[in-house]
Amino acid sequence: MKGLIIIRALAAIALIVAFFMLSPVIVALVEGTPEYAMSFVWPSLGTAVVASVMLLVSRRSRGHINPRSGFLLVSLVWILMSAVGALPFVIGGVIPGYTNAFFETMSGFTTTGASILTSIESIPRPFLFWRSLTHWLGGMGIVVLAVALFRLLGIGGLQLMKAEAPGPDVDRLTSRIAGTAKILWLIYLGMTVLETVLLMLGGMNLFDSLTHTFGTLATGGFSPKNASVGHYSSPYLQNVITVFMVLAGTNFIMHYRLLTGRFQLLWQNSELKAYLGIFFVIMMVMAVNLHQRGVFDSFGTSMRYAGFQTASILTTTGYVIADFALWPGLSQALLFAAMFIGGCAGSTGGGIKVVRIIALIKQACAEMKYLLHPRSVFSVKLNGSSMRKSAVYTIAGFVIFYLFFIVLTTVLVSAGGYDLETSFSTALATLGNIGPGFGMVGPSQNYFFFSDAMKWYLSAVMMLGRLEIYTVLVLFSPQFWRK
Amino acid sequence: MKGLIIIRALAAIALIVAFFMLSPVIVALVEGTPEYAMSFVWPSLGTAVVASVMLLVSRRSRGHINPRSGFLLVSLVWILMSAVGALPFVIGGVIPGYTNAFFETMSGFTTTGASILTSIESIPRPFLFWRSLTHWLGGMGIVVLAVALFRLLGIGGLQLMKAEAPGPDVDRLTSRIAGTAKILWLIYLGMTVLETVLLMLGGMNLFDSLTHTFGTLATGGFSPKNASVGHYSSPYLQNVITVFMVLAGTNFIMHYRLLTGRFQLLWQNSELKAYLGIFFVIMMVMAVNLHQRGVFDSFGTSMRYAGFQTASILTTTGYVIADFALWPGLSQALLFAAMFIGGCAGSTGGGIKVVRIIALIKQACAEMKYLLHPRSVFSVKLNGSSMRKSAVYTIAGFVIFYLFFIVLTTVLVSAGGYDLETSFSTALATLGNIGPGFGMVGPSQNYFFFSDAMKWYLSAVMMLGRLEIYTVLVLFSPQFWRK
Repeated sequence: MKGLIIIRALAAIALIVAFFMLSPVIVALVEGTPEYAMSFVWPSLGTAVVASVMLLVSRRSRGHINPRSGFLLVSLVWILMSAVGALPFVIGGVIPGYTNAFFETMSGFTTTGASILTSIESIPRPFLFWRSLTHWLGGMGIVVLAVALFRLLGIGGLQLMKAEAPGPDVDRLTSRIAGTAKILWLIYLGMTVLETVLLMLGGMNLFDSLTHTFGTLATGGFSPKNASVGHYSSPYLQNVITVFMVLAGTNFIMHYRLLTGRFQLLWQNSELKAYLGIFFVIMMVMAVNLHQRGVFDSFGTSMRYAGFQTASILTTTGYVIADFALWPGLSQALLFAAMFIGGCAGSTGGGIKVVRIIALIKQACAEMKYLLHPRSVFSVKLNGSSMRKSAVYTIAGFVIFYLFFIVLTTVLVSAGGYDLETSFSTALATLGNIGPGFGMVGPSQNYFFFSDAMKWYLSAVMMLGRLEIYTVLVLFSPQFWRK
Repeated sequence: MKGLIIIRALAAIALIVAFFMLSPVIVALVEGTPEYAMSFVWPSLGTAVVASVMLLVSRRSRGHINPRSGFLLVSLVWILMSAVGALPFVIGGVIPGYTNAFFETMSGFTTTGASILTSIESIPRPFLFWRSLTHWLGGMGIVVLAVALFRLLGIGGLQLMKAEAPGPDVDRLTSRIAGTAKILWLIYLGMTVLETVLLMLGGMNLFDSLTHTFGTLATGGFSPKNASVGHYSSPYLQNVITVFMVLAGTNFIMHYRLLTGRFQLLWQNSELKAYLGIFFVIMMVMAVNLHQRGVFDSFGTSMRYAGFQTASILTTTGYVIADFALWPGLSQALLFAAMFIGGCAGSTGGGIKVVRIIALIKQACAEMKYLLHPRSVFSVKLNGSSMRKSAVYTIAGFVIFYLFFIVLTTVLVSAGGYDLETSFSTALATLGNIGPGFGMVGPSQNYFFFSDAMKWYLSAVMMLGRLEIYTVLVLFSPQFWRK
């Protein structure tokens, strides 16, 4: 029975969440605040018990997860993870109300980084650790980790990964999907260790290094500091984070190719080239703008700030080292443009993603040739090979839904009485999984002031963005539920 | 020779412009200000002489205009019309500098309605008449009129009309293109007479009625009054203009069907239904919002203001009866959303246009079915018949170019030192041929403050919007100029 396979897969993921939920207990003990430990032990235990029962019930169930079940499973995973992940905040009494806790946790798992916390540093460290850990788990995709473990449980997970992993072309690396998942996680883990060590070498303590690394590699943006990364004035620390944000925004398959020395495959990748090109152009123009307008004294400082904020917004991380809402119009416009782009497919970044934008621009240019030579056929090349026509349709469909939800969210937020800038920014920042925007959700603000209803809606928008719209939307089509 | 056919066609259009440029002379004489007459007589005569020479040179040239020449011709027409049409303003000394005059004239011919005039009512009436007349000529498309006359000159104009007429599906009405052009112009002319009479019945004088009618039917937005239509407090006058703006935003072929009693063809038109649906939903929600927030005393007044501004922005007219930048956030967000939509194909409205948006949303929904049933083939129906797949590509290409130029223009305007809201509004308002936006180009503002370079760039953007991007853009592709 299909239902049992879904229950079995959900149980597997619940066990992973329950396992990771125990890690803040270590933080509580190390920090000498054991009173916070139980806020994590109880929900972790509860989740583990329920998951075990689910595994027991479905113990005879074996087989593959078909596309249909995959969509349902992935959406359920994100909802349940956030529902369970919010419990420690409520039990510990550090976030007022379940709505706020759910919003914060969904923002974490979706790697958005939009926070309702008004004073982050007053929250005890075990909770801040869990908050950042949700990023790390949601980033490379807990589901991808799960896929690697699914074999043990007799579940085939191909379609599942297709539905969840960010971007259109994940399963190119190896034909064995479980193998791919394992490689991706090893790279993710390796980068986590590397960034943490590099940050510590710059004088950051272990706790801050780990949490900031979680936020960086997941392109999340939660920081344990009120002033985000702006808390640290060290150029070295800022530059390390900039570099790792850029890396987190690239396809993780590229890191694998880099590690295995296949450089010419990197060079053939149109998306990677476009992504790096966009990054450098925006950074350079912004640096000149910031320097000319006298925002920073030296050109070097302008470069550092421009590089950091460009990387942060383009990759949809959302870390902040300066209130860019006070920067000159051009710098703001560049960040605004970056909000529409996002990272690469197969990265942890959100947004529309670079590959989709290239594909559509190439298609649009091909249309121009077609206008001049109506009887010819033109094919669009991407990453060195011709793109299937149907892929263009899927991408065009995605982009129109993306824009549709931007407009819908703008209208709904403004219906709450907020100004256009705030409403539009909120739409961009939540659907794009960015975090900060402009206006009342600007870099020095937070999402606390929204009504409960709006927080639930925005949680749904963050999930829609993280799961690339279609995965969630198909659940609402009548055909999905038809036999 | 192909070049001669283009010269011949250009000459024909130049003659039409020269002819219409004499009409302000009548205004000058009626108003008892004959001193202004010569500002129009000289450029008109000059244009006529040059056009006659061009006709003489190309007198042996007969044949069809191929797609390639069509693109070139249409772009040249808009540039030359604006170049010549700006002369009276400069000769009469009523607009400072040729750049400003060119911007105002391009804004007129493209039916944008973005003005550089800071005190409209201090401009003598013959010039205000010419200013509004550029709307009327640019609206249903002087080129469409020209097509009807081209036969006399031995020019076939099918491709020309395809390249110019707004929207993807103009040539459905009759198979003979010249016949279609004639019908469209007769409807346009009839509606002009009707609206003028209806406005006069409401107490508006002939001059104001005519100029406002020009601005309405062309979805232009130039008004001879400083306060735009807000100058008139009469609800009757405002409602008449609202109705005609909505009519001007519909496909003119629909008016033909309405007149010939083929109502069920109207009902089969998905675009018309969607357009009217969007209009009513936005109007109603805005009316409730304006009423609830206490902007207007009665719900009736709220309805009238909401209806007028919704029609004005949705159809890309740009008339103003209230400073909507001061309205509550929801009303602003709704107008903002309307800015992305625009009128129907085959109307005088600009923007992305309703038919393209429906087509892409339908395609996106079909993709959802495809996700669930990967082996099936789904076709998208539009206006009762299946849409060709290639049409979806063209539309997706158009939309991505549209968004690209919005972003590019936002960045370039902001580079001039303007804030994000102003820059983004300027991009939307010029590429969408709307006129007013938010921020410094808001309803109570104008475009005078921009630098000369920016005015030339924005003139190009308005032209790009009016000619639906591709027509102009192909001229910059190397393939265009290759044999």
